[in-house]
Amino acid sequence: MFTEEEKEAFYKILYKRRDIRTFLPNPIPDESLQNILTAAHHAPSVGFMQPWNFTLVYSDEVKERLAWAANKERRALAIHYEEEEEKESDFLALKIEGIKESPLTICVTSDPTRGGSHVLGRNSIPETDSLSTACAIQNMWLAACAEGIALGWVSFYKKQDIRNILEIPPHIDPIALLSIGYTDDYPNMPILQTANWEKRRELEELLYVDTWGNNRTNMD
Amino acid sequence: MFTEEEKEAFYKILYKRRDIRTFLPNPIPDESLQNILTAAHHAPSVGFMQPWNFTLVYSDEVKERLAWAANKERRALAIHYEEEEEKESDFLALKIEGIKESPLTICVTSDPTRGGSHVLGRNSIPETDSLSTACAIQNMWLAACAEGIALGWVSFYKKQDIRNILEIPPHIDPIALLSIGYTDDYPNMPILQTANWEKRRELEELLYVDTWGNNRTNMD
Repeated sequence: MFTEEEKEAFYKILYKRRDIRTFLPNPIPDESLQNILTAAHHAPSVGFMQPWNFTLVYSDEVKERLAWAANKERRALAIHYEEEEEKESDFLALKIEGIKESPLTICVTSDPTRGGSHVLGRNSIPETDSLSTACAIQNMWLAACAEGIALGWVSFYKKQDIRNILEIPPHIDPIALLSIGYTDDYPNMPILQTANWEKRRELEELLYVDTWGNNRTNMD
Repeated sequence: MFTEEEKEAFYKILYKRRDIRTFLPNPIPDESLQNILTAAHHAPSVGFMQPWNFTLVYSDEVKERLAWAANKERRALAIHYEEEEEKESDFLALKIEGIKESPLTICVTSDPTRGGSHVLGRNSIPETDSLSTACAIQNMWLAACAEGIALGWVSFYKKQDIRNILEIPPHIDPIALLSIGYTDDYPNMPILQTANWEKRRELEELLYVDTWGNNRTNMD
């Protein structure tokens, strides 16, 4: 069991965590990086398969190519906002990748063959391997926040581009590109909320009791 | 920034968290449940789409039907272990569902239509909605641990069975069934590790630098 102080510290970190897009060039201390990666590796995984790998990209040349892939995809998507002028300008104003700025980009991948053919639970729901990897990313994100380090999840790319750039085998799934580093701009609210792109929904509206759509919750 | 004590408290909770299969019938206090669900709702999501819903199953009748679906799938999978005698006995010995025991089962779902057709980032990688939902589940898991409450992720079921039982629309993805409650058996190691089903891998072996397969890490 945990003390009230420990619980408070935990929630303080959980609610502080934000998706960050601007980074300072300062390197990440080895101890912090080790803490972040160890936290990732202690995420839950279906059948304890631990499907993740972490490719740590320090090379400016490789980061340049990753940023190229993300920006290409961003420009392609912008075309779909052309007819909604307001959204388009919002979209273009959002700084959606800090890959070149941050001292480190981590490509988190998921290996669906890890653990062989008899991974408990994976046989029922094959995507549980990537869901496990997402849990590892959330652990990293919270650990980074605890370390005072900013993290941004870039999800604008064609997977095949990332595989080509990082020489990832075709059966491995590049789940995320994470930009990691210090920042002087750690916002209190999600940047998409500040930018009026989307609001936080009311939790009550997302809760049902016993069957889908039944809004009579115990929370009333 | 956080103090050393706050960081320690955070990591203590992160490493304490386990997948739990045995539960006491005691109900979950409203405040703890509210804390767990609020933590989930503050997970990151692609384009801030917040794709999750939480169906809180208290009804014994509904839990009975969910347990039936999980057990049916479990029996079906056991057939695939028949020729590996050792694995089969390990498999059958593992208590893989606490759905009937726990006072509450939460079905966490992901709605791919949430936020309309222009969710930032989702257009590049459609499964980012379920990955976001997995991040919410990891937040719940850690928050439950902080609250002294056990959680088990059941991933043995056919999605259509769960949709039928909980009246979930066909386009909604039932990502997880989570058993939640108190326990008198909170292990220090993953139960699949204790059962010799799988070991924790060496973190170093999962790290690459700049390109896939390059094991020369900064961690040496």
